[in-house]
Amino acid sequence: MTEQKIPYKIYLSEDEIPTQWYNLRADMINKPAPLLNPGTHEPLKAEELAPIFCEELVQQELDDTTAYIDIPEEIQEYYKTYRPSPTMRAYHLEKALGTPAKIYYKFEGNNTSGSHKLNSALAQAYYAKKQGLKGVTTETGAGQWGTALSMACAYFGLDCKVFMVKVSYEQKPFRREVMRTYGADVTPSPSETTEVGKKILAEHPGTTGSLGCAISEAVEVATTHEGYRYVLGSVLNQVLLHQSVIGLEAKAALDKYGVTPDIIIGCAGGGSNLGGLIAPFMGQKIRGEQDYRIIAVEPASCPSFTRGKFAYDFCDTGMICPLAKMYTLGSGFIPSPNHAGGLRFHGMSTVLSQLYADGLMEATSVEQTSVFEAAEYFARTEGILPAPESSHAIRAAIDEALKCKETGEEKTILFGLTGTGYFDMVAYENYHNGTMTDYIPTDEDLAQGFAGIPQFPGNEF
Amino acid sequence: MTEQKIPYKIYLSEDEIPTQWYNLRADMINKPAPLLNPGTHEPLKAEELAPIFCEELVQQELDDTTAYIDIPEEIQEYYKTYRPSPTMRAYHLEKALGTPAKIYYKFEGNNTSGSHKLNSALAQAYYAKKQGLKGVTTETGAGQWGTALSMACAYFGLDCKVFMVKVSYEQKPFRREVMRTYGADVTPSPSETTEVGKKILAEHPGTTGSLGCAISEAVEVATTHEGYRYVLGSVLNQVLLHQSVIGLEAKAALDKYGVTPDIIIGCAGGGSNLGGLIAPFMGQKIRGEQDYRIIAVEPASCPSFTRGKFAYDFCDTGMICPLAKMYTLGSGFIPSPNHAGGLRFHGMSTVLSQLYADGLMEATSVEQTSVFEAAEYFARTEGILPAPESSHAIRAAIDEALKCKETGEEKTILFGLTGTGYFDMVAYENYHNGTMTDYIPTDEDLAQGFAGIPQFPGNEF
Repeated sequence: MTEQKIPYKIYLSEDEIPTQWYNLRADMINKPAPLLNPGTHEPLKAEELAPIFCEELVQQELDDTTAYIDIPEEIQEYYKTYRPSPTMRAYHLEKALGTPAKIYYKFEGNNTSGSHKLNSALAQAYYAKKQGLKGVTTETGAGQWGTALSMACAYFGLDCKVFMVKVSYEQKPFRREVMRTYGADVTPSPSETTEVGKKILAEHPGTTGSLGCAISEAVEVATTHEGYRYVLGSVLNQVLLHQSVIGLEAKAALDKYGVTPDIIIGCAGGGSNLGGLIAPFMGQKIRGEQDYRIIAVEPASCPSFTRGKFAYDFCDTGMICPLAKMYTLGSGFIPSPNHAGGLRFHGMSTVLSQLYADGLMEATSVEQTSVFEAAEYFARTEGILPAPESSHAIRAAIDEALKCKETGEEKTILFGLTGTGYFDMVAYENYHNGTMTDYIPTDEDLAQGFAGIPQFPGNEF
Repeated sequence: MTEQKIPYKIYLSEDEIPTQWYNLRADMINKPAPLLNPGTHEPLKAEELAPIFCEELVQQELDDTTAYIDIPEEIQEYYKTYRPSPTMRAYHLEKALGTPAKIYYKFEGNNTSGSHKLNSALAQAYYAKKQGLKGVTTETGAGQWGTALSMACAYFGLDCKVFMVKVSYEQKPFRREVMRTYGADVTPSPSETTEVGKKILAEHPGTTGSLGCAISEAVEVATTHEGYRYVLGSVLNQVLLHQSVIGLEAKAALDKYGVTPDIIIGCAGGGSNLGGLIAPFMGQKIRGEQDYRIIAVEPASCPSFTRGKFAYDFCDTGMICPLAKMYTLGSGFIPSPNHAGGLRFHGMSTVLSQLYADGLMEATSVEQTSVFEAAEYFARTEGILPAPESSHAIRAAIDEALKCKETGEEKTILFGLTGTGYFDMVAYENYHNGTMTDYIPTDEDLAQGFAGIPQFPGNEF
């Protein structure tokens, strides 16, 4: 098999799309810590989550024992319109770098949402419809998740209310139009349409918003409107579960050609892409079947893994959501508006946080201009204009490939190309015009964020 | 074979990408009329075209006898990064329409240029590089061609100067940034940087530009700068040749499942997509092997097939280019700025013009708001947000499918989905806001354009 010339794009057939999601938690020795009720500090029960999330998604959220969960037929039918996504061999990039490394990337951008987010949006919209709900609410940062959810809701016939982080809303007016094309209602956050939004605006006039604010607004609307639930595009266990389709396909594609990656790299904001990409590989690593170096790449401007605390914290700025144990910069942390693209969330998936705490993966942070330098290099060599988020992984992959050039090692690198940057051209324009700058929070900036993390017995950090 | 369930996406393997382009002219009984020298009205010779176009492209332009032309290895290597493109079965659209028709579309939008234009851009950049040129100049309307050429030039290491129709430049600032990401130099047209641009601006102050103007400027720069040639994204025979890869792949994909289309539909601006899509099918039709209904769909605001004259005319507004025999609205015709997207060219491929004149294909025109209605319907059912250009074909395909619903006929429809609409959100926004209007030129408007068509013996119309 290994003698065979590996194509540029390894496509699986539609019959090879996974029919089950893989629940990495089932294989984790140290399970991710449970969500806590912010009032009692007791683990949340399904009935407490039911007013916020759809019933079946609550089950998935809490289930850390079932390794494989069937993907409903209706979701599979939509997956088939854009999946399997290609696992690409970056021949042109390797040649341009002059590296002996073999670089692969799993490309999730070939759908109208422009990213992997559609994988979970379809699942969440499906379960909402199945439960007979009228609609769902959500937040979106860079706009990829909001677009994905709008598409899924249009398909399943659900109302869709999106709170979009104000800085992105202003930088990306066209994202709003894509969502409107799919019939969604889009509001810049913080807004005057919710109590929590009003409160945040009163306290921080002129704020450019954050995912944490937008989550608070979306949750408020979901819990105060009959027939609505809240859905989230990252961080949650259920989202990582749905996104496991990325890693399952990537692994199946590489297995076909007898390829085993040495290094697996993904960008990390809330963890949806990284958690999905690494799931089956991490499962093998935990079970002792195969070792991999797994690297999370985050922006230096929002460094939850590399500079955050591992503690119970709120997922939202309004502090109305459950507490999650995760690497966090504090729910009050708002990254510089200078930061382009997603990966602006103050916390991190509890699953990934536990894996990182257990030493099963590494993390690194990269600065913005070096990320765009890598993005442009990649665009010119591989053709695809990458999303700023994905370009964090590209930066790290190029750096690893250049190390191989120095040492002569023929390592195999797999990274996640989560999406395309077609709606991020304001950021690219700033990069071209030389007006893009790097921003690294000072220790003092971080201390302010940490001060907002709730303190209670057992939550020492 | 026909018993087999047809997948949503019929992918060919990389080994099945055509290794030769198909030159439909070789099978045409009435060959397209030759280009004429605008001074002498004599057919142009290769040496007269050489100052404008690359040598090898001149050969392809004039060759109407060689049926198959090898695709150079270097071009194939890039094709493999984004081809074969999928031939999609529109199951969701069929279901939503409730039609017994079977709808297929060849989707060319899954690459960063967002359209089929990359197929010819790579070829033209390759031959320019092979000839040892420094760079190329071109025009772009909606921006797809300019983006495609920028990508190709970045890959082959050529300088790229793009004149972008002013109305598009203003409506689509992000297209400019994509081109800059690939290192291209982009100028809004008409501009003060060329003699012809200055002349057009003096005569028509405040003009929003046209492809015809932009062509004049690009040709002027190519012919007055050492080491530069002009390249064009549509209309020319060579472009239709390169785009035959679309039809060859579509036919190979359908053949795999024993599917024969009854109706083939494509949008028509200059003819690059339509000519490429229909090539192998039209070849069969001419050779009497298989009959197909072939329909060109054009905007009612720029109706060269349905309301134009079949005559020799200039391809550019500045009247410095060769004369081509084609369906034309006159080189002075500038479509309403209200018109969104490409398909703004006053003329039409000489190949398609001859086929239409010979009764081998039909043409229809559609109005703008009905095109966007179809676009939104398609986006919501099939997921993909289509380019306005492609949506002309969607409109016609939906109309044909609805006719089948009335009659109960199970016709098989194939249409070309040339690209995505991610850079056309201003037009979508106008549609959502109800500010989009339809525009149909009056007979008087058209008469003004026709008055600019040169009159000489043998050019009666």
